[in-house]
Amino acid sequence: MRDVAVIGVGLTKFGELWDVSFRELMLEAGVRALEDAGIDGRQLDAMYTGNMSAGQFINQEHVSSLVADHAGLVPIPATRVEAACASGGLALRHAIIAVASGLHDFVVASGIEKMTDIMTAGATGALATAADQEWEVYQGATFPGLYALMARRHMYEFGTTEEHLANVAVKNHENAFLNPCAQYHLKVSVEDVMNSSPVSLPLKLLDCSPITDGAACVILAPAEKARMFTDTPILVAGTGQASDHISLHSRTSLTGLNATVEAAKVAYKMAKVGPKDIDLAEVHDCFTIAEIMAIEDLGFCKKGDGGKMTAEGQTTLNSAKPINTSGGLKGKGHPVGATGIAQAVEIVSQLRGETGKRQINKADVGMTHNVGGSGGTAVIHIFRRAD
Amino acid sequence: MRDVAVIGVGLTKFGELWDVSFRELMLEAGVRALEDAGIDGRQLDAMYTGNMSAGQFINQEHVSSLVADHAGLVPIPATRVEAACASGGLALRHAIIAVASGLHDFVVASGIEKMTDIMTAGATGALATAADQEWEVYQGATFPGLYALMARRHMYEFGTTEEHLANVAVKNHENAFLNPCAQYHLKVSVEDVMNSSPVSLPLKLLDCSPITDGAACVILAPAEKARMFTDTPILVAGTGQASDHISLHSRTSLTGLNATVEAAKVAYKMAKVGPKDIDLAEVHDCFTIAEIMAIEDLGFCKKGDGGKMTAEGQTTLNSAKPINTSGGLKGKGHPVGATGIAQAVEIVSQLRGETGKRQINKADVGMTHNVGGSGGTAVIHIFRRAD
Repeated sequence: MRDVAVIGVGLTKFGELWDVSFRELMLEAGVRALEDAGIDGRQLDAMYTGNMSAGQFINQEHVSSLVADHAGLVPIPATRVEAACASGGLALRHAIIAVASGLHDFVVASGIEKMTDIMTAGATGALATAADQEWEVYQGATFPGLYALMARRHMYEFGTTEEHLANVAVKNHENAFLNPCAQYHLKVSVEDVMNSSPVSLPLKLLDCSPITDGAACVILAPAEKARMFTDTPILVAGTGQASDHISLHSRTSLTGLNATVEAAKVAYKMAKVGPKDIDLAEVHDCFTIAEIMAIEDLGFCKKGDGGKMTAEGQTTLNSAKPINTSGGLKGKGHPVGATGIAQAVEIVSQLRGETGKRQINKADVGMTHNVGGSGGTAVIHIFRRAD
Repeated sequence: MRDVAVIGVGLTKFGELWDVSFRELMLEAGVRALEDAGIDGRQLDAMYTGNMSAGQFINQEHVSSLVADHAGLVPIPATRVEAACASGGLALRHAIIAVASGLHDFVVASGIEKMTDIMTAGATGALATAADQEWEVYQGATFPGLYALMARRHMYEFGTTEEHLANVAVKNHENAFLNPCAQYHLKVSVEDVMNSSPVSLPLKLLDCSPITDGAACVILAPAEKARMFTDTPILVAGTGQASDHISLHSRTSLTGLNATVEAAKVAYKMAKVGPKDIDLAEVHDCFTIAEIMAIEDLGFCKKGDGGKMTAEGQTTLNSAKPINTSGGLKGKGHPVGATGIAQAVEIVSQLRGETGKRQINKADVGMTHNVGGSGGTAVIHIFRRAD
């Protein structure tokens, strides 16, 4: 397999984007990525699109064809991949495999979700189709409810507190405040989170990521051709993907995601690095408890210490292990199919030193961690500067 | 890239399968393929699932995780791909790329759709999401209506008749009669087709493929390891994928599918063969006109001669170019996400000489042709015997 590099990235504003359609939104991210890479669309060999559920959100399947068409890239091979909220990470992974295999040279990995076109109740129902419908949702579980079960167990086993959870939201909103593309430019305090409306206790409104429209794009090339397009190619050092039992009741533990642990093993091995080598990570904080479990499962701290690590400020922008410098799903927004690609956009931008006020000092090796459903899928990527 | 071979295939009965759930149906095809390959599930490295719209049909996204879980294959990397009715072909293609790249050795490509769990009106609406919702369906187009437009134009330009169309249905029902897994064991005459209820004229009920439940599986291995499992490995000689404008009004012609032409070019080149070398093909006959256009676009006859070629019996089981020996989508049934994989199951079985009463004499090189929507995507594979 060949080495693969990122030569361009593009991101739209995240938020409630009433005035732009699905196809226009995707095009906007794509054009930005093409301009960033300095590549002509006609040079592209294939495209991958991560999208969770345009079928439910906008009544449209076959979005790969729609997007290729609207982007003027016909007859390019265009593939949609889906693994709920990990759809973007999975699109990136398959774009990487396509380049690494030698089949294609220049490949776009994109992600998109247009979630606000249907009513919020509809969006919540659509998101729940990421969990096991027959064995969980039809029995009364909501999607926040599943993560609330994990939070309760984490609190019981490790003494994690609601304040620990709140600290994740506070930090990620701080970071989002510095990200022009973020949905929220709104700082929140621990008290704000603690006093926000209950969703599924212990999770309150400000423990939950929002419903968001957005799109993101990454352009890949064989590493040996990357410098034709950019002075700062970012190498894909590792990729890992794993599955887990889709229903919580089949798992051996509720306090972590085994898919994360397994995918991380593969990615760390491929990249020949360990948790200590990761300078920064974008992790899947769909709920505050999810970030705490993620930093434990990825090996950034001992199992059970994620809440304390966060509350002690060890994951802030200026700490030794900045987590979710973009604002994360919580502050930047979570257009589910786009999230995995947007995470890569942030890491690449940090490694290039191009994130302005939220730029961290040492950014040589970065990680993205993208989860599908309540942990049925995890996709992890490790990037490093080429020089 | 490494050469890739098929070492096992599995297919469920196609039809209205009220007594089996989505996950059970997928498992049935998977177990058959594992038994056929003589491989243990624990040896598998990755799985790909083609599925068009479990989100709309059974209210479940994230089916890759569901399927991996129910098959006992956790933490296997599990990916769903979707391109409407070409989802299965696309799953096969990405499984092939994963093996060819060297990333994985033993990979399952599966396809499934459970369509009868919702009302027929719902199924028709769900299928229409394969077309451009905003620019076609919201304006009043139905999915059969789009193919009817193509049929009308084909009749106008080339003198194709309704009887020509009917001959496709007659032939494919003849073949399905010999296929134990087919949805229909029911021969029809040209008169039956001509007198069946109008759906979208000139297409009548018996010009249309049915709504079907079904699943199919193919197991791939690096060619050099295939003989550890089977005496008759079937090589993947070529794979091609292309897109086209999703809306008919953007295309330069209505009498063929450019995605088919483009994907075929790539697949023929990779396999180093031409249309004359193809001994048999499973083509995408979602409507009778689609088979006529397919055999033209694939180069089996001159553009415009597909109707005549069919009516003259040049595509029957005992002809020089048997098309849809399985019964095709029309007679075998069309569980949309499963179709592309089921096509490969038929070709592999024919090349192995294992299709019983419908076995053709010379089967060295075979082709599958899988279309998404009204032609927005096409995926083509060419297989040949390894000896």
